[in-house]
Amino acid sequence: MVDIAILGYGTVGSGVVEVINTNKFSIDKRAGSPIRIKHVLDLRRFPGDPIEEILTDNIEDILNDDEVKVIVEVMGGVEPAYTFVKRALLKGKSVVTSNKELVAKHGAELLEIARQRDINFLFEASVGGGIPIIRPLNQSLTADEIYEITGILNGTTNYILSKMADEGGNFEEVLKEAQDKGYAERDPRADVEGHDACRKIAILSSLAFGMHVDYEDIYTEGIAKITRKDIAYAEKIGYTIKLLATSKKVEHCIFARVSPVMISKKHPLATVNGVFNAIFIKGNVIGDVMFYGKGAGKLPTASAVVADIVDAIKHLNCNIVSHWSTEKVNLMDLKDVHSRYFIRIEYDDFESAKKEIERIFETKEIIQLDNSEKELSFITKNEAEGTLSEKVNLLKEKEGIKEIISIIRIEK
Amino acid sequence: MVDIAILGYGTVGSGVVEVINTNKFSIDKRAGSPIRIKHVLDLRRFPGDPIEEILTDNIEDILNDDEVKVIVEVMGGVEPAYTFVKRALLKGKSVVTSNKELVAKHGAELLEIARQRDINFLFEASVGGGIPIIRPLNQSLTADEIYEITGILNGTTNYILSKMADEGGNFEEVLKEAQDKGYAERDPRADVEGHDACRKIAILSSLAFGMHVDYEDIYTEGIAKITRKDIAYAEKIGYTIKLLATSKKVEHCIFARVSPVMISKKHPLATVNGVFNAIFIKGNVIGDVMFYGKGAGKLPTASAVVADIVDAIKHLNCNIVSHWSTEKVNLMDLKDVHSRYFIRIEYDDFESAKKEIERIFETKEIIQLDNSEKELSFITKNEAEGTLSEKVNLLKEKEGIKEIISIIRIEK
Repeated sequence: MVDIAILGYGTVGSGVVEVINTNKFSIDKRAGSPIRIKHVLDLRRFPGDPIEEILTDNIEDILNDDEVKVIVEVMGGVEPAYTFVKRALLKGKSVVTSNKELVAKHGAELLEIARQRDINFLFEASVGGGIPIIRPLNQSLTADEIYEITGILNGTTNYILSKMADEGGNFEEVLKEAQDKGYAERDPRADVEGHDACRKIAILSSLAFGMHVDYEDIYTEGIAKITRKDIAYAEKIGYTIKLLATSKKVEHCIFARVSPVMISKKHPLATVNGVFNAIFIKGNVIGDVMFYGKGAGKLPTASAVVADIVDAIKHLNCNIVSHWSTEKVNLMDLKDVHSRYFIRIEYDDFESAKKEIERIFETKEIIQLDNSEKELSFITKNEAEGTLSEKVNLLKEKEGIKEIISIIRIEK
Repeated sequence: MVDIAILGYGTVGSGVVEVINTNKFSIDKRAGSPIRIKHVLDLRRFPGDPIEEILTDNIEDILNDDEVKVIVEVMGGVEPAYTFVKRALLKGKSVVTSNKELVAKHGAELLEIARQRDINFLFEASVGGGIPIIRPLNQSLTADEIYEITGILNGTTNYILSKMADEGGNFEEVLKEAQDKGYAERDPRADVEGHDACRKIAILSSLAFGMHVDYEDIYTEGIAKITRKDIAYAEKIGYTIKLLATSKKVEHCIFARVSPVMISKKHPLATVNGVFNAIFIKGNVIGDVMFYGKGAGKLPTASAVVADIVDAIKHLNCNIVSHWSTEKVNLMDLKDVHSRYFIRIEYDDFESAKKEIERIFETKEIIQLDNSEKELSFITKNEAEGTLSEKVNLLKEKEGIKEIISIIRIEK
């Protein structure tokens, strides 16, 4: 019998209890020992709920219980989660968490404490919900040098963009609908502004590259500016718009970015729709691999948490190695990163606009929608982003150009 | 320093040497100890190759070398691989293999020997080439009861079907081209008749369901009968044809099957094209997850083999649990499995044919291609396969029907 405690009885916490009860027989068998949930920490009361008897609002009851070997932190937010988790690890208890803010901010330090004490700090559920990605990165892709990770890491924004593409709604309308259905929060900023995806790509990059990628250093751009027309243009040229979180090794440097990107419909990520997430990885020997599944939701997330609990129990006094050092990566300046852009403009005069585009961007290919008056778009060559924004600034001033409507990165 | 030996210096064997040399620094770090390749077994000579000095044609040199802790079997075929691997395990050496025939036939027994001796028998590369799937099944999906695995597990047939769909060639033409490009063997039967996929789904099912699924019990149908016209019909109704290997739990029974299937273009497997493979899994709490990547090829396969070598070295005296018992599953009779069919017929008389189809299959929906003379098709309801084949036999005899041209299973 192994005793565990759960910190937080919200959506994920109650999901963990549900999963452990639902698949008790096979989970206990895989853990090699029956799992008993001994404490649940929450400030709220849950009258009539079976966990009522084991509910406490005092963390000391849990930290001082020597029988508790694994602590499951599913409260979310940095504090008090960080304090609780650190104290638990220092007491020699393994910790499993689904908390991406905590892992992105303090992952390197908490892993180091676990390593020193031969216990584990596991966080499969912090990225990609139920999708197995942290464990494959640590244990399956060990023969490879990974040089790119690109993911659709946020279900809310992917739902919104998929819905806009399929049914042609506006961002605001579709966001409202997503909120009504419970797919988006009342305060949707963390999702639609890309901050959630940013923390997740910081975690994946840190593990893949073995150094600490600070999420605060990552350029992050959300989807609120994407319009139906942008999507129609993408459609016309065989592309789709996704919020991609990406990090790449370019020679000996690393860059990371969260932004809407037009990707070819032939790219495996292009068909990841609705609330699904996917993580696409390139390794120097394995080539391309992709992991796909539900990126959020009570049971998928709880499935990943419980898989970590099983692993923690199988390795009670044995640290499962991961390679995320506290040494911080200096990310490349985005100005030096090469990219292609889709640029959409409003013109006063078609011929002058076309001539200026040809002169500045060296392209003759103009894309227009049938129903777009006084509007055109084009795709730039692959150039450093710094150079490109200088060129865009130059174009703005030119005769015939009224306004730059949108600029979206584009990738095959 | 940990010594290993490689049995077989063919495509995969030389790939393993290349991967270990290419990524030496990071691989040694992850293994926690430098890896030395001490012997390579092959009957051939390789004059001038750096491995020449460590080449042997005598397995006893390897089995009797107590310094060798991990043996890598990449010879292929059941014998002598089985004898060598079993002897190695009995001597207390962990074994890593990419050999699907060996694993499908003797996996349960070899795992049992490894378990008794606290060593490991690992075979990530035997299914899906580089795609991490065996380790995620064993270690990541531990909170779930898996009730379906469906995969595109053979790159050759997927290349042929993708090419037929994209460019409209005949099966024979495209097969010939695949052979010229090296994507298909000179003797392509193991691939095109589905036997390769059959062994792989037997391995995955055995791990997922924890009992031995004998590949010889699995109904297996290849792709040689699929024509351009079948693909054109699929296209017309928004489907694509793939060779799917599948196994499902239906109540307390399991069925398994390898056959061409029409799947909706919205299914994540529908966009897996060319030589790529993917494995789609349904669990009772995680929902749908999919793993995608290159299913074959020297370096992707070697990447999976080397990841297993790293894991074997990290667990030299500690068995990594897997749940594949020697107890054999009795698979369901396919006659009792429910499915929908796409049926294509040649008729003498349209109206009579239509009337008979409506009477026997209770459907009024007839699908025709513009350029198909005297041909029609329709989709049946979901029924037991036994009932459906009786109905097909009944239809054959009816007036107005000339010939049943093709019957293909269909799934959303």
